[in-house]
Amino acid sequence: MQNYRAPIRDVLFSLCELHGNFPYPQAMSVAQGLGDDEAPMILEAIGKFAERVLLPLNSTGDREGAHWDNGKVTAPAGFKEAYKQYVDAGWPRLGHAEEYGGQPVQFSLKLASDEFLHSANQAWCIYGLLNDGAIRTLRSHAEREQVDAFVPGLVSGEWIGTMCLTEPQCGSDLNLVRTRAEPAGNGRYRIYGNKMFISSGESDWADNIVHLILARLPDAPPGTRGISLFVVPKRLPAADGSLGEVNNVHCLSIEDKMGLKGAATCAMSFDGAEGWLVGKPNRGLNCMFVFVNKSRVGVALQGVAQAEAAYQESLAYAHTRLQGRAPGGMREPADPLVAHPDVRRMLLTQRAIAEGGRALVHLCGKWVDVVDSGDAVSRDEAEQRLALLTPIAKGLLTELASEATDLAIQIFGGHGYIKESGVEQRFRDVRITRIYEGTTGIQGMDLLGRKVLGPNRAVLDRFIDEIQAFCDTAVSEEIASLQQRLQRAATMWRELTDELGREAGADAGLVGAVGVDYLMLSGYVTLGYLWAQTAAIAVRKLASGCEDPAFYRAKLQTARFYFDKMLPRVATHRACIESGTDVLSTDDALRGATA
Amino acid sequence: MQNYRAPIRDVLFSLCELHGNFPYPQAMSVAQGLGDDEAPMILEAIGKFAERVLLPLNSTGDREGAHWDNGKVTAPAGFKEAYKQYVDAGWPRLGHAEEYGGQPVQFSLKLASDEFLHSANQAWCIYGLLNDGAIRTLRSHAEREQVDAFVPGLVSGEWIGTMCLTEPQCGSDLNLVRTRAEPAGNGRYRIYGNKMFISSGESDWADNIVHLILARLPDAPPGTRGISLFVVPKRLPAADGSLGEVNNVHCLSIEDKMGLKGAATCAMSFDGAEGWLVGKPNRGLNCMFVFVNKSRVGVALQGVAQAEAAYQESLAYAHTRLQGRAPGGMREPADPLVAHPDVRRMLLTQRAIAEGGRALVHLCGKWVDVVDSGDAVSRDEAEQRLALLTPIAKGLLTELASEATDLAIQIFGGHGYIKESGVEQRFRDVRITRIYEGTTGIQGMDLLGRKVLGPNRAVLDRFIDEIQAFCDTAVSEEIASLQQRLQRAATMWRELTDELGREAGADAGLVGAVGVDYLMLSGYVTLGYLWAQTAAIAVRKLASGCEDPAFYRAKLQTARFYFDKMLPRVATHRACIESGTDVLSTDDALRGATA
Repeated sequence: MQNYRAPIRDVLFSLCELHGNFPYPQAMSVAQGLGDDEAPMILEAIGKFAERVLLPLNSTGDREGAHWDNGKVTAPAGFKEAYKQYVDAGWPRLGHAEEYGGQPVQFSLKLASDEFLHSANQAWCIYGLLNDGAIRTLRSHAEREQVDAFVPGLVSGEWIGTMCLTEPQCGSDLNLVRTRAEPAGNGRYRIYGNKMFISSGESDWADNIVHLILARLPDAPPGTRGISLFVVPKRLPAADGSLGEVNNVHCLSIEDKMGLKGAATCAMSFDGAEGWLVGKPNRGLNCMFVFVNKSRVGVALQGVAQAEAAYQESLAYAHTRLQGRAPGGMREPADPLVAHPDVRRMLLTQRAIAEGGRALVHLCGKWVDVVDSGDAVSRDEAEQRLALLTPIAKGLLTELASEATDLAIQIFGGHGYIKESGVEQRFRDVRITRIYEGTTGIQGMDLLGRKVLGPNRAVLDRFIDEIQAFCDTAVSEEIASLQQRLQRAATMWRELTDELGREAGADAGLVGAVGVDYLMLSGYVTLGYLWAQTAAIAVRKLASGCEDPAFYRAKLQTARFYFDKMLPRVATHRACIESGTDVLSTDDALRGATA
Repeated sequence: MQNYRAPIRDVLFSLCELHGNFPYPQAMSVAQGLGDDEAPMILEAIGKFAERVLLPLNSTGDREGAHWDNGKVTAPAGFKEAYKQYVDAGWPRLGHAEEYGGQPVQFSLKLASDEFLHSANQAWCIYGLLNDGAIRTLRSHAEREQVDAFVPGLVSGEWIGTMCLTEPQCGSDLNLVRTRAEPAGNGRYRIYGNKMFISSGESDWADNIVHLILARLPDAPPGTRGISLFVVPKRLPAADGSLGEVNNVHCLSIEDKMGLKGAATCAMSFDGAEGWLVGKPNRGLNCMFVFVNKSRVGVALQGVAQAEAAYQESLAYAHTRLQGRAPGGMREPADPLVAHPDVRRMLLTQRAIAEGGRALVHLCGKWVDVVDSGDAVSRDEAEQRLALLTPIAKGLLTELASEATDLAIQIFGGHGYIKESGVEQRFRDVRITRIYEGTTGIQGMDLLGRKVLGPNRAVLDRFIDEIQAFCDTAVSEEIASLQQRLQRAATMWRELTDELGREAGADAGLVGAVGVDYLMLSGYVTLGYLWAQTAAIAVRKLASGCEDPAFYRAKLQTARFYFDKMLPRVATHRACIESGTDVLSTDDALRGATA
């Protein structure tokens, strides 16, 4: 029952109209040799692949799941063949340097096309998901020899990368990493330890797997300052560069999960596996930061992708399912669900999440483009903006993706609870996005504690200045109403941040207690800014007699919906922030179960 | 990993302390022959059964699921044997009349003990869930002969009952029922049609299954005024009262669902199956109302039960899992999750939902007791109160149960996404409660359209008067702060209702557009009332030097948490209500997928 069409027009609106006059034009020209019409062609081609090849494998992958048998991992039927098509088409090469076989395009374009893949089949995407991060990490920190050995295979997609952080006792808290690395004397290290929750730690569909793994050197200090990064391949390179002997890396089992069943989440054992140090000793976390931040934007994108697909499926169902009499309705034997105001409320919520979320992810993508291509000054600004926006995008959009997919179940009613409808799978699959790459709680503490109340306060002020300047720009009477509400929300955001800054010094628990509420509030104001800009573009287009007025009227209605029915959520988050830590600080209610 | 202890002390607090001075004392004495100490004994015994017998079958039932093979349905291993134990202990008889083999106890006590069963194994409970409703419907509307034939088997639990409403084209909208009934000439009718989503429509564990089914007589008018109710057993009674021939009722398949996998959700075919008319022709929906309203309180209870279990499991995990450094923390190698403010926020949210929700369900149960036992005046008031509270309890508590179980996944982090932890099952199982017995959208329209803006406005005013009178009662300074906030919220609830009453006449879409927000707002104020009463009791107990001050201090903290961190949600719902229908009424954004 799953059906999905890659929303090319909406993606191009976001990339070219909403973010088209991005203040750093050099970000637009990073893709040397990529003509103006090539971006739509890439989007079309990847969209078709997603619709025709990946989507049909989505529910079958969920039913079948990944298999583990005596250390061998097999993906669901069709996954490997689809990946071969993907590699043969050269798409893994997008966004990478030519010298390693890549085809350089803007990161924002790559994000845009990745959305289609995740909408069609999130589980399938997991297998190749970490290649980009692995490539960037190796290129930034590894010795040339390792870059040459591992990057080309990752760029072509013939090899896949993993990120091995988590251990049984060590989830969000990397202080607790126990895996150790011993010098092997030949410039190599031997890795000993167990890692868990490793996405595609083992599989049958790549010639080699390149693990980036955190471990401790023998004399390392305790805590995160004693963690180093290593690259450990499944198969070691032979002297002639071909694939050599098999390394001591084993997949002990795969997890039975709530969703993403088609993806293999592996428990891995490194039993003296050979590898190389990446970057400086004990500086592994710093090397990983590049990886983690990019990954977080990618996870936000997964949320957007699932919200979009859930919206499309809900809308189609709401047009065909006849049930009940709507206000002013007249169809026999009943009106379609889409005529009912409560169903319209749910559909517009999904739409506002999907399209507003896409705008936010693309905004992050544009700043990455500036980091990749700008001069030193703009790169510095871009890095700060990204540092601010990344936890907002990751935290807010994954929470809202759960909401959008959950609403799909609700719109389908009893049929949504049945696997055949396909929408409950979207909820289960996307549920992990609120957890991996740092839970929403972690994102909230990162945003408030490490960024806003830390070195990034000035960049928040610049962002709010930008919002307020937009609010002061005359567009039309209709937009003025949105601008006024946005102005109030942005001012409140700034004042609340001031207040938290004053209180945080004396209240060690404050950041943790209100971090999630602060993140959500920040996110709703940010989405409000993007929706108000969208509405302003739509009003101008409609006034100028554009070719597709229906498209812009829909944007305008969704923007108004966002302001009427979603932005008011800031009121609750504000009240929760203002009530502070008091009620969380005593132990009365949360004693152990035996108390 | 699932672990659960029946929260006897909390249940007794709600039944006896919070609702103990219920204004209709006769409701307390309905259980002739049930001494003061018998209620706790019943709770203890059923609690142990839930913990020891049902809980271990919960995750195995989820993994194994119900089986269908050529029309036969088999429950997961152990389910049938557990049910036999339950029947042998005589527990299905609780709450029913002695003349049919029952043991009369208050409905509120039955609700209280049913909670434990649902916490331990919601899927198992589905099989016998509809017996109570079937018994009440038959006793209220069926001929004596059918009552005698079917009720004793349902009371003992040896037979099970079903409710056959839904058809493929007919979900929330019963206008669309197509199943037909033809007189068979012998006082019986022959039923033709297909029903779907029939809980335990077929199973291997009862001697007989008694279907209550909606169908149309040959000359019935269209719409809901042409629907009649029939009782159709799987096996017809023989002349001597023993089980006779097998009826033409067949289970065509069972559904593959998101959760509740251990329960059999059946597609049923009635191919000339014989049965009897229940109540008057074309008045089937009226006969079903008793069934549906009681069932809705039962579904609210399922939500509470899952929230309670999710809280217990989350709290236990948060005490044992060591991760990160909490503010002021000092444990090595890391502090337990429970020390982190954001985790405390999530745990207290779960607790406030579970305990506040229980208080609301018991309040409904107490009013049912008055309906069952009061004089005409008090019964009338009780029926009106129930009519008001039922959609609030069903809508709010199932929404909040999704939140509480979802938070459990979040508290467990990556481990919560793995089936082994057991918490993701609770989310999947409880997800259906927002759909069956009427979606939250349906509850919202029932509350606002049919009740509050219809004949029940006066009862809402009396309820708000009661809340406001409570707010004016001096207790202590600490309670005064809660009372002030509750007073404001209650006044706002009343004024908003006035405003909606003024607008609804001119705006046909208003009830549907704001029904869910109105329901949630009503629910949060109602929970606020119950939490403020709880806090007042706790303050008085603590001032009087009670035996278990820790118990009451925990109640007080949870009440304060509710007011600080959950009641503020009314602000958002209010704003969404006040923005009305405008943005929902145009068609720009929700055209068909091809537009």
